[in-house]
Amino acid sequence: MRVLGIDPGLTRCGLGMVEGSVGRPLRLIDVGVVRTSSHLPVAERLVTIERGVEAWLEEHRPDAVAVERVFARSDVSTVMGTAQAAGIAMVCAARRGIPLALHTPSEVKAAVTGNGRAEKAQVGAMVTRILRLEVAPKPADAADALALAITHVWRGGAQARIEEARLRAVAAARRSS
Amino acid sequence: MRVLGIDPGLTRCGLGMVEGSVGRPLRLIDVGVVRTSSHLPVAERLVTIERGVEAWLEEHRPDAVAVERVFARSDVSTVMGTAQAAGIAMVCAARRGIPLALHTPSEVKAAVTGNGRAEKAQVGAMVTRILRLEVAPKPADAADALALAITHVWRGGAQARIEEARLRAVAAARRSS
Repeated sequence: MRVLGIDPGLTRCGLGMVEGSVGRPLRLIDVGVVRTSSHLPVAERLVTIERGVEAWLEEHRPDAVAVERVFARSDVSTVMGTAQAAGIAMVCAARRGIPLALHTPSEVKAAVTGNGRAEKAQVGAMVTRILRLEVAPKPADAADALALAITHVWRGGAQARIEEARLRAVAAARRSS
Repeated sequence: MRVLGIDPGLTRCGLGMVEGSVGRPLRLIDVGVVRTSSHLPVAERLVTIERGVEAWLEEHRPDAVAVERVFARSDVSTVMGTAQAAGIAMVCAARRGIPLALHTPSEVKAAVTGNGRAEKAQVGAMVTRILRLEVAPKPADAADALALAITHVWRGGAQARIEEARLRAVAAARRSS
């Protein structure tokens, strides 16, 4: 499956596309950042982010989109813009009927490093290793977007296996009754 | 000029369209609310709000859009959704190149009631009087959207007069030099 990870932000919105499935090596498809100037009105910045996300969806046709979940307790000066950038990304996916999931920063850190409180550098190092890249993706927003996409493939796989096991158990119970 | 006021919210997004100019009676064009169910995923709720705003822009072709400015200090449990609904409304206006302004709740209250700390009922009563309606618009989100549109016409007019006076002063200074 192809997953687009989006690390939302008004100044830098990270985009990372990964292909693969649970238990198989993951492959980097593309990684980048949509940047917008803080001198522009917020509405224009959001339109630029929308165009960037739309272009990626159009070009790479992901099977799912994973966006970082934004919390109100984050830095107050930037959280509103981050929430709005996340909202735009979510709308872009929902308009196309692409399955969408939100993952928290600690879920992503735990998935790729095993530690929900890992530092940014460690996340970048693990993304580099998991995707067998020669250098770490820069800036951190790009690496974080890839980490989101990796998390989604792995969590999606785990959730699918749990659902499969549940259905098998239900079927076994029906046969034995 | 025609102004669309938008009181953003995930559960109820108020929309109010007003026509008029400073010093002339304002006229109600349309008022309503886009409602979305809290049982739906946020992304789908945002898409519903986008469709609602788009339909109003398409039908009524406003000259300007006024959106309530959302602050991070508001109620934390709803502020993220409110910020995202505001972001979607802003993008709808910006995509069409419609001039957009943000007004704070206290600016709106001060404009329509003379008191920046007026209560909701007082805002509704003044909106009813200013637009010569027979009954107050319900729910409060609809009245607030109309109050935003009224504020925009009046503030826009004041800003235009200040700009005009500034240009006259510059021209006079040039002539006398």
